[in-house]
Amino acid sequence: MEFTFDVISAEDFERQRRVYEPLTDALRTLIDVGIHTEVDDATVLLALEHLEEATALLEQRTRSGRSTLRHADSNRAVAWANPAVGLRNAIAPPMVIEHEPDGSCWSEFTLGPAYEGPPGWVHGGICALVLDHILGEVASEGLNLPKFTGTISLRYRRGTHLGPVRAEAFVERSEGAKTFARGHLKDADGVTVEAEGVFIMPAWARDAG
Amino acid sequence: MEFTFDVISAEDFERQRRVYEPLTDALRTLIDVGIHTEVDDATVLLALEHLEEATALLEQRTRSGRSTLRHADSNRAVAWANPAVGLRNAIAPPMVIEHEPDGSCWSEFTLGPAYEGPPGWVHGGICALVLDHILGEVASEGLNLPKFTGTISLRYRRGTHLGPVRAEAFVERSEGAKTFARGHLKDADGVTVEAEGVFIMPAWARDAG
Repeated sequence: MEFTFDVISAEDFERQRRVYEPLTDALRTLIDVGIHTEVDDATVLLALEHLEEATALLEQRTRSGRSTLRHADSNRAVAWANPAVGLRNAIAPPMVIEHEPDGSCWSEFTLGPAYEGPPGWVHGGICALVLDHILGEVASEGLNLPKFTGTISLRYRRGTHLGPVRAEAFVERSEGAKTFARGHLKDADGVTVEAEGVFIMPAWARDAG
Repeated sequence: MEFTFDVISAEDFERQRRVYEPLTDALRTLIDVGIHTEVDDATVLLALEHLEEATALLEQRTRSGRSTLRHADSNRAVAWANPAVGLRNAIAPPMVIEHEPDGSCWSEFTLGPAYEGPPGWVHGGICALVLDHILGEVASEGLNLPKFTGTISLRYRRGTHLGPVRAEAFVERSEGAKTFARGHLKDADGVTVEAEGVFIMPAWARDAG
């Protein structure tokens, strides 16, 4: 397995972000509209023609290289494609992860209708996705170390309302290749889901160290 | 909280599926293309115009009612909008869940580049999403009972390759309002993630029973 990153300059990062972020945002809007539209067959066909035109335009040149880069200035991983934090993945809310000097992480973001499970509530598996991600971020020091989820346990105290949420995580302790991380998800009324996980550096990375 | 469903006839289900499934599939293609495109600014702007046209067309009439329905013939829940199984949610792979006579569930589906975490591997949180969903399906008898995730624990035996996967789940036992479910995710090389969860029927549903 590869765990090296190509470097992206601050300038190129900003250029790509400026060009491609509006595209991802437009797709996020379309995902929501696609769930709720009730237009007739003929209108769907017209919309499909536009989607196919857009696809053909965007497919004219595609990247085959690595989708995770390292930011030249901050040295942080730039996970464009990631389904939790990817600025270029319309599946991602996206979470923007803030790293505190003490090593802890937090992120405030919105989970809209595309993440709904029971009516009005976030799907339990989406809570698991965002908590797995932020615990992994804190354990791997911002995706800079190759650490993989070993185990993760989630306790759902109550439902999470759709809308603005906040996720938080910190490292509890490390033992050899294992890092023990904890965190939680909050909505406007407080903590909804608690998580604890063990993240492991694989043997190949330990040998290389 | 609501936990009643509007009924959808088999005929209307097939009509909606025929009209809207190609739309969702087109959006799934665009999500992938959006991650990997490297076209220049001008081409992105042209593509954005098409996406905005499609959005305007689809927004001409939207549904405000319930997004989970009950299929008139099979009596199964039809969770169009669900981020794991929704035929109308482009975030969903989608999983199509098969229910066996013994109550167990399985689903075979593909996790492509939009679900990537570490290079070549499924994001650990996506594994958690699909396992939470299938354990919830088996515990709630196909989303027909109001059962919510209480706790879920996942053990990652190794990475899950991007590509075709299979998820399986069964009910281990029930105690009062609690249902204990287990399951796992497999790729072509065998089991990658094991899951166990406790799903709980909320007090309001028990009182109503």
